[in-house]
Amino acid sequence: MDIRSYVLNKAREAKEGAYSLAKASSKQKNAAIIKMAEALQKRAKELISENRKDIKFAKGKGLSKALLDRLTLNDKRINEMAQGLVEIAALPDPVGEIIKMRQRPNGMTVGKMRVPIGVIGIIYESRPNVTADVAGLCLKAGNAVILRGGSEAINSNKAIVTVLKDVIGQHGLHQGAVTFMDISDRKAVMEMLKLEGIVDLIIPRGGEDLIRAVTENSRIPVLKHYKGVCHVFVDWDADLKMAEEICFNAKVQRPGTCNAMETMLVDKKIAKAFLPAMIKRFKDAGVRLKGCPLTRKIDASLENVKEEDFYKEYLDLILNVKIVEGIDDAMVHIAKYGSSHSDAIVTNSYHKAMRFLKEVDSSAVFVNASTRLNDGFQFGLGAEIGISTDKIHARGPMGLEELTCTKFIVLGNGQLRE
Amino acid sequence: MDIRSYVLNKAREAKEGAYSLAKASSKQKNAAIIKMAEALQKRAKELISENRKDIKFAKGKGLSKALLDRLTLNDKRINEMAQGLVEIAALPDPVGEIIKMRQRPNGMTVGKMRVPIGVIGIIYESRPNVTADVAGLCLKAGNAVILRGGSEAINSNKAIVTVLKDVIGQHGLHQGAVTFMDISDRKAVMEMLKLEGIVDLIIPRGGEDLIRAVTENSRIPVLKHYKGVCHVFVDWDADLKMAEEICFNAKVQRPGTCNAMETMLVDKKIAKAFLPAMIKRFKDAGVRLKGCPLTRKIDASLENVKEEDFYKEYLDLILNVKIVEGIDDAMVHIAKYGSSHSDAIVTNSYHKAMRFLKEVDSSAVFVNASTRLNDGFQFGLGAEIGISTDKIHARGPMGLEELTCTKFIVLGNGQLRE
Repeated sequence: MDIRSYVLNKAREAKEGAYSLAKASSKQKNAAIIKMAEALQKRAKELISENRKDIKFAKGKGLSKALLDRLTLNDKRINEMAQGLVEIAALPDPVGEIIKMRQRPNGMTVGKMRVPIGVIGIIYESRPNVTADVAGLCLKAGNAVILRGGSEAINSNKAIVTVLKDVIGQHGLHQGAVTFMDISDRKAVMEMLKLEGIVDLIIPRGGEDLIRAVTENSRIPVLKHYKGVCHVFVDWDADLKMAEEICFNAKVQRPGTCNAMETMLVDKKIAKAFLPAMIKRFKDAGVRLKGCPLTRKIDASLENVKEEDFYKEYLDLILNVKIVEGIDDAMVHIAKYGSSHSDAIVTNSYHKAMRFLKEVDSSAVFVNASTRLNDGFQFGLGAEIGISTDKIHARGPMGLEELTCTKFIVLGNGQLRE
Repeated sequence: MDIRSYVLNKAREAKEGAYSLAKASSKQKNAAIIKMAEALQKRAKELISENRKDIKFAKGKGLSKALLDRLTLNDKRINEMAQGLVEIAALPDPVGEIIKMRQRPNGMTVGKMRVPIGVIGIIYESRPNVTADVAGLCLKAGNAVILRGGSEAINSNKAIVTVLKDVIGQHGLHQGAVTFMDISDRKAVMEMLKLEGIVDLIIPRGGEDLIRAVTENSRIPVLKHYKGVCHVFVDWDADLKMAEEICFNAKVQRPGTCNAMETMLVDKKIAKAFLPAMIKRFKDAGVRLKGCPLTRKIDASLENVKEEDFYKEYLDLILNVKIVEGIDDAMVHIAKYGSSHSDAIVTNSYHKAMRFLKEVDSSAVFVNASTRLNDGFQFGLGAEIGISTDKIHARGPMGLEELTCTKFIVLGNGQLRE
């Protein structure tokens, strides 16, 4: 079969799945999700043996140790996947919520009802646990999902999907609800991106190249998550101890994440008081520091930061340090070099806190808290499908609500247009 | 200058305008919008004289009388444009609204702040009043707009934009806030659609071909409004008098609009009781009727409806009539042939009303009210920029709120990620 027909058939299966899910009750969806968790645990051996094939192939291809680790499934990870599904089942169902019902002068009542989006295509890389997470979130929100994982995890992903599909079938739902594309050819993705009218939304999860390729070629709306070049600005009237804790947490707690700080901006008025202890703490933690000329006047041991460094997402224990003239200078820097992901101010000034909140245009803006907190669980949304840096539909952590849309509903008793 | 540089420069101007608007107060924005209205009225002669050029050219090209009428500016229409702007100024400002602020277990407060989207590109056809409407709505929501009107209205549009820009400059806002592309070449649109990162959203307003071309080529999110193939389903336990009024209104009140009914679905149990009077009323109003075989058994004078007719948006006094087995049959028809725009049920059954509301997946779903009420003013949103048939970001009438997005804001006192 040619790739176009293959993809079209998969998408049509998913569409059937979406119809069946749209009518399913919360009870039915939750029961299926909990049974999925149980089935993954019961059939762990099967999953691990399929995962071994991927690992063997990946070793042959010479994948790095870190990537091999991401790819590996074991009992602990399968239990975590199952636990993730149980947590999704426990979240409130967003579908059917009715909001903003208001009576109009003509007597009709108008508001919005939250409904599933329909069919969501997810394009992702390496870690096989994403398969179960994403399927659980989409199913809970009433959406069918078309999964297109990375080729290096294809046996693991297929095995997980087989388990999930078996459970779906046993719960009277259409198996197209979780649809898997097991073609590695990139053309399959390109064909999916043309299926406007069948697929309603595309979410790419992975590197910048993947996201750009998807955005350039898709006729379907795309929700994306570009890199996180995040900042903490230490204002001159900050509590310096609090500032130190926040900056340390934002850089060091988990540097490989998109909400970790890449550049620390320090008001020149307190640079001399703040930086020496801060720099020592970073150095003790193994952070490589790059400083602007003013910073290097305070500590000449720092490397010289280049302008291009300010655009970089290091995802590593590396940090740019820049001394700024004040909040305006800091906000100009953030607007120019930042990626509108997560940015924080540490300050005791009400006026400056309000200005920063209003004027910094990022998916999450923090006053006196670590950028690392930009996360669905931390924000109380439950599990997230990613952090959107888009402005359309969803911005910041995307939970179940962001996997739905609304429609207007009108309750009338004979109203006409005059 | 080549087209690419021209468009890029225009977009950069708009970006500057967006920065200036994002910081503007409601007072400042409203004052500018009211002055725009005054200036359009004061400078009506200038506008009419530029409009004459377009009319003359359009007559030379042999445009239809209807299109010439849409294109024409006169004192009455200029006053309406001005009145539209005054109404926009009176609407509440969506920007800065803070919603869902909740305290998290770690003591930080998290919620969302409503903010402008940034730069919005609007691609539209013929009617010059759209220029002022759209500029007013975008400006009120804090967005810069790039206007790309139809070539047949270019002199009128330029004249309107000149007036608007003068006012913007006088109010301390950057004139890029309202940016006009005065190149008719379609390449200019194609170049704009590539400016991801500068332009944040594209809204095409016009025919299906325009919308498809934009969707296929845009790297920027597109909010679109495809055709409206709308239905009214008359259930067997409907109030038949109410059903007649609603169906008549949905078809006849203004047939050239996207929310007018194209197909009337009638439960077979009441077809004989309902149809004869209904058909007579439609015929008296000059409606051309196409009936299914069962309908033609009741009234043989009707034309035979073909399957392809059910997909058509007539935008005219033409109606398909189909007798169905019941609500399930009606909903299957709507799902297959409809365009997910506006669909109504007339019924006295609570159970069927609830099913229709839940299961019909359209931008607005009506119980016992005319589909013609799918409209921003009727729904209480104020002026609208269009009716979205998309599921992402906005669905149904798009008012000021749909021209904004939200960001997360966090008020902390030293919170870290554990």
